[in-house]
Amino acid sequence: MTQDSFNARYRAALGNNASPLCIGLDLDWRQVPASLGKAANPVLEFNRRIIDATSDLCVAYKPNLAFYEAFGVKGLEALEETLKSIPEGVLTIGDAKRGDIGNTAERYAYTMLDLLGFDAVTVNPYMGLDTMEPYFAYPGRCVFVLALTSNPGSQDFETLVADGKPLYQHVIDRCLERFGDTGRLGFVVGATHPDDLASIRQHVGPEIPLLVPGLGTQGGELEKTVRANNGGVAFYNVSRAIIRAGEGEDFAERAREAAARFAEQLNAVAVDAQ
Amino acid sequence: MTQDSFNARYRAALGNNASPLCIGLDLDWRQVPASLGKAANPVLEFNRRIIDATSDLCVAYKPNLAFYEAFGVKGLEALEETLKSIPEGVLTIGDAKRGDIGNTAERYAYTMLDLLGFDAVTVNPYMGLDTMEPYFAYPGRCVFVLALTSNPGSQDFETLVADGKPLYQHVIDRCLERFGDTGRLGFVVGATHPDDLASIRQHVGPEIPLLVPGLGTQGGELEKTVRANNGGVAFYNVSRAIIRAGEGEDFAERAREAAARFAEQLNAVAVDAQ
Repeated sequence: MTQDSFNARYRAALGNNASPLCIGLDLDWRQVPASLGKAANPVLEFNRRIIDATSDLCVAYKPNLAFYEAFGVKGLEALEETLKSIPEGVLTIGDAKRGDIGNTAERYAYTMLDLLGFDAVTVNPYMGLDTMEPYFAYPGRCVFVLALTSNPGSQDFETLVADGKPLYQHVIDRCLERFGDTGRLGFVVGATHPDDLASIRQHVGPEIPLLVPGLGTQGGELEKTVRANNGGVAFYNVSRAIIRAGEGEDFAERAREAAARFAEQLNAVAVDAQ
Repeated sequence: MTQDSFNARYRAALGNNASPLCIGLDLDWRQVPASLGKAANPVLEFNRRIIDATSDLCVAYKPNLAFYEAFGVKGLEALEETLKSIPEGVLTIGDAKRGDIGNTAERYAYTMLDLLGFDAVTVNPYMGLDTMEPYFAYPGRCVFVLALTSNPGSQDFETLVADGKPLYQHVIDRCLERFGDTGRLGFVVGATHPDDLASIRQHVGPEIPLLVPGLGTQGGELEKTVRANNGGVAFYNVSRAIIRAGEGEDFAERAREAAARFAEQLNAVAVDAQ
């Protein structure tokens, strides 16, 4: 892998900030703290304060596009400007979970990885390998394919067993086969399934990045989750438990305290697991 | 079902325009005809001309959000204004194929069905029933769940057999069970699989709307497809074969000719199938 590979950039970011914490920038604009009500773009101002307060504690920020789209043109502006205010060296993951046919996927990939310029993106595998292909055309980026997600509904289809293995395992195997040697493939595996996370990590090896949501308000157990990952390349995402730790004027300080706590806990286990 | 149910609105639109044709408004902004190069918003101007030229021939328009997002803020403006210029009575389908967990899905549903105000939306079922739930909160709308899509990759995961039936059939059955009595459930079934379309139509009955892409440039056979649907509530989508029928100054006239041809062909079989 080249020095500008995604994993090299991950390691550089970890070296700077020493925590595999990923912070989800998912503010619902209806929940902007009252103290920001007069800002020209309250969501942007909120994000800037959160980033200022936490960027030395995390390896990445992950805005989920749903929250920006719901704010219309202002949301798109907030997203673009937020990305500009993230310090060099901290990675950005565009959580959009897109999935569509060839020429349409090419447009989504362009929007996420070129126009918005995220370092990584999440995609939905349901429609097949051809719908994921266009995202792999961008050097140094990572495409996190949804495998086993953190929500209760992950048991509806993702775990259906075909030919002796669950659907999410088919997704992982077919993606490894097709995209495994690009250095750009990752998977989303929820912290709510630590035993499955352990098996998946063993199966894909240490160098496939895993994006692990569900640690904060969703109730995944931090220590068990980090042990399950066994020192592999991973982004542990926490959204609301950090950005909504405080709802008053001191929201950024409260966010920093919460982020510092998560970072410390993640590192305590991570060191232990080496 | 009430008079303002989605199916009632579909029948009213069919009564006006007498064709189950759905036109995909999927212009890649790099392909705007040269004659529109000086318009303030070329994509919007293109769509307005297409709509003026074809709105008496189709039952719905289906913008795919990928093409608008790739045009940034101008794309979002083009989408909002395009929706305003679609005549009352012609339905709108927002093709975004979103799929995400609870509070995030709620935001996507709000954006598509309230902020943008589409009459219908496409969603991705991979992450489970809880990720689709929020879209069903909007009266008189339709939620088209991806079942069996029209692309080659549809054979990668959608057709994997678990417990004796393919994944897409699990999706259909679980959705029917949970959302079948809302009057708001539909499915996406590609025209590229006419035999499966026939089985699906028989299985779900005539009143579940099917959105059928793949008739135009994707090569589905029109007559076979319409017979397979057997007179059920359906939207036959054609995008490029209509909006890109001509690339010169007369693109709108060429689009009308192509749309008229599809409408006539659809009706010739439809009448026959009664």
